[in-house]
Amino acid sequence: MNGKRKNNFSEWYNEILDKAKILDIRYPVKGLYVWFQYGFKIRRLVLENIRKILENSGHDEVLFPLLIPDQEFAKEAKHIRGFENEVYWVTHGGREPLNVKLALRPTSETAIYPMFSLWIRSHGNMPFRIYQVVNTFRYETKHTRPMLRLREITTFVEAHTVHSTLDDAKIQVKEAISGYREFFELLGVPYAISQRLDWDKFPGAEYTIAFDTIFPDGRTLQIATVHNLGQNFAKTFEIKFENKNGEQSYAYQTCYGISDRVIASTLVHHGDDSGLCLIPNIAPVQIVIVPIWFKDSKKDVDKVIKKLKEDLNEFRINIDDRELRPGNKFYDWEVKGVPLRLEVGPAEIKKSEVIAVRRDTGTKIKISMKNIAMDVKKQLDDITINLKSRAWSEFNDQIHDVTSIEELKSILSGKGGIIRFEWCGDRGCAKTLEVETGSNLLGTLNADGQGKCLRCNKESKGILQVGRTY
Amino acid sequence: MNGKRKNNFSEWYNEILDKAKILDIRYPVKGLYVWFQYGFKIRRLVLENIRKILENSGHDEVLFPLLIPDQEFAKEAKHIRGFENEVYWVTHGGREPLNVKLALRPTSETAIYPMFSLWIRSHGNMPFRIYQVVNTFRYETKHTRPMLRLREITTFVEAHTVHSTLDDAKIQVKEAISGYREFFELLGVPYAISQRLDWDKFPGAEYTIAFDTIFPDGRTLQIATVHNLGQNFAKTFEIKFENKNGEQSYAYQTCYGISDRVIASTLVHHGDDSGLCLIPNIAPVQIVIVPIWFKDSKKDVDKVIKKLKEDLNEFRINIDDRELRPGNKFYDWEVKGVPLRLEVGPAEIKKSEVIAVRRDTGTKIKISMKNIAMDVKKQLDDITINLKSRAWSEFNDQIHDVTSIEELKSILSGKGGIIRFEWCGDRGCAKTLEVETGSNLLGTLNADGQGKCLRCNKESKGILQVGRTY
Repeated sequence: MNGKRKNNFSEWYNEILDKAKILDIRYPVKGLYVWFQYGFKIRRLVLENIRKILENSGHDEVLFPLLIPDQEFAKEAKHIRGFENEVYWVTHGGREPLNVKLALRPTSETAIYPMFSLWIRSHGNMPFRIYQVVNTFRYETKHTRPMLRLREITTFVEAHTVHSTLDDAKIQVKEAISGYREFFELLGVPYAISQRLDWDKFPGAEYTIAFDTIFPDGRTLQIATVHNLGQNFAKTFEIKFENKNGEQSYAYQTCYGISDRVIASTLVHHGDDSGLCLIPNIAPVQIVIVPIWFKDSKKDVDKVIKKLKEDLNEFRINIDDRELRPGNKFYDWEVKGVPLRLEVGPAEIKKSEVIAVRRDTGTKIKISMKNIAMDVKKQLDDITINLKSRAWSEFNDQIHDVTSIEELKSILSGKGGIIRFEWCGDRGCAKTLEVETGSNLLGTLNADGQGKCLRCNKESKGILQVGRTY
Repeated sequence: MNGKRKNNFSEWYNEILDKAKILDIRYPVKGLYVWFQYGFKIRRLVLENIRKILENSGHDEVLFPLLIPDQEFAKEAKHIRGFENEVYWVTHGGREPLNVKLALRPTSETAIYPMFSLWIRSHGNMPFRIYQVVNTFRYETKHTRPMLRLREITTFVEAHTVHSTLDDAKIQVKEAISGYREFFELLGVPYAISQRLDWDKFPGAEYTIAFDTIFPDGRTLQIATVHNLGQNFAKTFEIKFENKNGEQSYAYQTCYGISDRVIASTLVHHGDDSGLCLIPNIAPVQIVIVPIWFKDSKKDVDKVIKKLKEDLNEFRINIDDRELRPGNKFYDWEVKGVPLRLEVGPAEIKKSEVIAVRRDTGTKIKISMKNIAMDVKKQLDDITINLKSRAWSEFNDQIHDVTSIEELKSILSGKGGIIRFEWCGDRGCAKTLEVETGSNLLGTLNADGQGKCLRCNKESKGILQVGRTY
């Protein structure tokens, strides 16, 4: 797969999903896929990370129904307009038509907020924070892709919060952003943050902050969004509370979420032409031990490896004792992205050491069996650091500040990435630019304008970023 | 709630779900409910137990799509006949009708087995065992009840296995049964095992083994089923493998599952008129520490409690430092079923002890602060043993061996439970009895007949058990 990750990303991606046993893409419905055993283990570890972050910041897990009755779903006008073309509808139970048709949640505001109107009573309840991990559904008419554009989003982690003041909601937005920063840091996924343009925000929100990453083919991918909902949904769903002065007031809300795309991102950013290369934090197997057997040494080698496994029991370890040639085993675990491989044969035992091979660099080093846990930990930490810095450096190479439309077009049609420039703040100006250049508007940076608008040359109000999105 | 659990079970059950914050039953669609924060934590611990059992016995977790296309769903004739009246159908995406209507899985055989036909290749693959934890859907026309009869089953844990011989499939059925026995043992849920009658087995199975428990109102509840599918589905879905002789052969399969009902069962069996009483294994809070503050001692008490928490860090602990009267706190945690409460005030500190109150018996004992972890562990173990033995003893009191129809009827209309008797093995005989007595046939025990059929007085072929099911 020489250079394939960069030069034929789509093919590389589909190959990796199959070879590393992440997803089976042969399920007989467009946009639906099957999580293989190994892929599921990675997914579980990714979820452990986000659950920990959410719970440490005061979110409790709950679970709401999948099915939303038509009348609730249709209550918030902007929200329904935003989703009506992509909602799946259940219309029949058994052979009978249902009295009320039921939406498969595309997101859960309209399932959750009617219950919030029963739950939220007083400012003493707040801040109130919950989250759930669920499957959601979008009837995508565009080209679907595993984990990137799905009809069943299998891993939707959505948080919903309620506050007594707008300021508290704003603070929550900031906390959510910092939680996601921490999460992406753990996964080694680089990102750019921007505020979505007013006409691109979440339907029903006051404003939307989004995280985008960049894939090796230069296209951008939205990987997280955080929405300040103001009182919009509270007014629609009658979410009221008694404030400090004893008066009834509509609540302020936020919501934010991530999905399967995050899992795809960590796989894509660190993978290479030989397969996956997992960041140790989410590697189902962090260390594989491959015995190098010779006829007369098998027993000794197995004994030493058994001891090694005990010494390394703080890590997720696999001893590959299959009856295969070591080379075949190396290949398997390389494709699956196991961060560190230890080889142990009679020569190593004699010197009381092991050969350690790093997946990220291919470097072979010798590690003494004494204090092996400490040395292995150091290697895994180094791998984490290296993977992160490699991914960020690749990412930063794909961020471009431009001062002319020609430059913008040339980058878009070339290596792609995120392109930034000064903008006057006018919707028409941005829309025209979008059409003229074939770009997608991502949003504005939190920065003042310092020059002239790229397109109309009027006074800039700030920085706009664009790309070509998935 | 004096005597209510026994005498007005339905009311007790709904009250407990609300007061202990397990499920919110006010979601605006029949048969769909919302998991509250506390209920969700219990659910999570229950799932941890079953995941551990399944993984230790060679099952890997996977995840299949919810939506099953009509043509796959309809392939297995018996299966579709068994489910066609209770399947929800998705017929529209956005505003357009779909070309192929999609079933919300009522169970996943028809989603999984088309993929098995791609995955299973050789006897070297087998035994092949996977499981998934998913939401499934049944359009129930009967009276729905939280966790007991749902339209969205939120917690469906289904395992599917593939084998190269019928004998291996039979062995797997036995292993699955022993896995469930272990699981119910951990939850303290008593059960009776029987083989479902041929006309009541899982649609498409060769035979079905079921676990039933008995609720305080005398009604029985199916809490697990294990199916030997033989080659039925393999022939429909073309699941073939190369056997040891190099020939192509249809595979043998089993499947088995549990659901939300298991969670309901552990809550119901151990609860009492004061609320929940959780078996420590699935208690989100195993120990609550309630400080008994007096004006001048708050600081001392808090310091001691902080130290206690460290000493007890192997347990799930909550320090209830809310500004409430201790009595109110006691009440809250009683309703929520926390197994052990520790009270610490200046009097206890002086004697270097704590007062421990057991939720299951109400017993108050004094525990020295020295070796507190060991003593607390012993208390929790005792609670587990007591809860289990209490539940089994209540259950055994509801198992009745009868030798006349009058006796059967009188028990059915009285305290209920599971009723056992000799049976000739004739379907007509059983069916008539079912109608005449208003009972539901549960199935046969694994035992030889030793007398005359209860109804027709012919030679008995074995023991039949009946009850009144949920």
